[in-house]
Amino acid sequence: MHILVTGAAGMIGRKLVDRLTSAGELGGRRIDNMTLFDVVEPQAPANAPFSAQTYASDLSAPGEATKLIAARPDIIFHLAAIVSGEAEADFEKGYRINLDGTRFLFDAIRSVGEGYCPRVVFTSSLAVFGAPFPDQISDEFFLTPLTSYGTQKAVGELLLADYTRRGFFDGIGIRLPTICVRPGKPNRAASGFFSGIIREPLNGQEAVLPVSDSVRHWHASPESAVGFLLRAAVIDSGRIGPRRNLTMPGLSITVAEQIDALRRVAGEQVVGRIRREIDPDIERIVAGWPRDFDARRATELGFIADRSFEDIIRTYIDTELGGKINQ
Amino acid sequence: MHILVTGAAGMIGRKLVDRLTSAGELGGRRIDNMTLFDVVEPQAPANAPFSAQTYASDLSAPGEATKLIAARPDIIFHLAAIVSGEAEADFEKGYRINLDGTRFLFDAIRSVGEGYCPRVVFTSSLAVFGAPFPDQISDEFFLTPLTSYGTQKAVGELLLADYTRRGFFDGIGIRLPTICVRPGKPNRAASGFFSGIIREPLNGQEAVLPVSDSVRHWHASPESAVGFLLRAAVIDSGRIGPRRNLTMPGLSITVAEQIDALRRVAGEQVVGRIRREIDPDIERIVAGWPRDFDARRATELGFIADRSFEDIIRTYIDTELGGKINQ
Repeated sequence: MHILVTGAAGMIGRKLVDRLTSAGELGGRRIDNMTLFDVVEPQAPANAPFSAQTYASDLSAPGEATKLIAARPDIIFHLAAIVSGEAEADFEKGYRINLDGTRFLFDAIRSVGEGYCPRVVFTSSLAVFGAPFPDQISDEFFLTPLTSYGTQKAVGELLLADYTRRGFFDGIGIRLPTICVRPGKPNRAASGFFSGIIREPLNGQEAVLPVSDSVRHWHASPESAVGFLLRAAVIDSGRIGPRRNLTMPGLSITVAEQIDALRRVAGEQVVGRIRREIDPDIERIVAGWPRDFDARRATELGFIADRSFEDIIRTYIDTELGGKINQ
Repeated sequence: MHILVTGAAGMIGRKLVDRLTSAGELGGRRIDNMTLFDVVEPQAPANAPFSAQTYASDLSAPGEATKLIAARPDIIFHLAAIVSGEAEADFEKGYRINLDGTRFLFDAIRSVGEGYCPRVVFTSSLAVFGAPFPDQISDEFFLTPLTSYGTQKAVGELLLADYTRRGFFDGIGIRLPTICVRPGKPNRAASGFFSGIIREPLNGQEAVLPVSDSVRHWHASPESAVGFLLRAAVIDSGRIGPRRNLTMPGLSITVAEQIDALRRVAGEQVVGRIRREIDPDIERIVAGWPRDFDARRATELGFIADRSFEDIIRTYIDTELGGKINQ
């Protein structure tokens, strides 16, 4: 089996490639070959039991998508995207990469013909939804994005469903929850604090909490996100029907519950490193985000959320901190 | 005021231009100039109290959208589209005209800059919805098109909302009900019989009814459709908020109710020209179509549906048959 991953240099892409490299198989089929693509050259997997090509380019450049598809990968994980903030700051770049790039990839697959019909797993986003929401968003709630990024992801979902219906490929779109705990350095994303208030205290550093403790949000660990991708790659798509885009299950919890979980796992001293400093701009942005979903379809299709936020924290400590908390 | 109409040679386009020509104004502002665009050359309005240019081209050809926008029309009615059947039969043409053509038009407007921000009225379609449905579809029901045409219209809606949010233009998308009574000759569209069972008997001809009398559907007269377009052109868009695409109000009635109305308006002899001959293919297609909507937002915003199907029939007789029924 040959697997293509676009966006392979990103955080989720790297974790996906690591997991596939360890497993050496997917859905009971041996992996023979992986193609790893991103705008910067992805790292080749170390000691992989299969051959791997890495490849840096721009998916929206003429001919690039066709090159990626020439070897007819059996499974395509399409993770590549300009992130929300950049797509908002640079209108043309966001549409070029997120909409045109996705469409070029889909059209490159379509153009192969000869019965070629790979599984395509597309990562969509909660940004396809726009306030106001009900308290819990159902699987039939409409998409009214309030960002260009969310618009581009929603268009990708529509194209995925239509190209699948036409038989050009066998696509599944998955809307990932906010990834928490996101490893790495603090960043300036408005959602950054959801990870920051766990990650920085565990690293012995102060973290700023810019919103009230009562703010509720929808979370999944990086490990669960990789699990969703793998599940989407092997699921019998005959069970899904024509509605090919699924809200992934997650944990709907408040900031207070996040902090309580951190206290139980790491103690009061670590929690003491969270400094409360309300930022009205961030509060306003976060107020426009979804808080909870009834992700019934995905759950019935075997996508599994994290069991608890304590589990999420413990997994972060194990995978990113070598099991050690900086007290 | 300068008005641009794309798709001006189509049935709704012609009726819209006729109405504007008679009025000579829109929303209390005098019309100075109209540009009429289509893939075939639209007829210039006769005795118009304003100047008019007609123009035949392909909106998806390089530079054509820019030419249309060069004179900076104040109001743009974007009706041009490949119809559903053709978009399904010719995948690439449908995407080229309905998606790329629309995006080129939107980008041509965006590229003007200098504070140019016209009203754009975009005709979307019930084809953005896909079965299964609730009995009555709310304004918050999700878009899951089951045709390429419906996909292209749904993408147009998303782009319209995002370009409006970014301030490139002031867009309103309206999802028209099935137009009934559609004037002209019988056609082979699966929905053709909804008009055919009224139009042909009134013309002294037999009409075939290929589905059961209990089939329910969502109708608007051509006159109401033009009314929706005009309302969308002048409404204070500050009242709409970021959700710029609206399901238009209509009449949800069964075929039996259509026939009863025809009997009341035109008598038993005319109704006798309807021949029942079930077509399982058409029954199956129609079973996948929406039957009823709660078009609350549009109604609150002043869009007005036809009062009764009898009214629809009488208007058809007045406008298309010169007031005379062929008994």
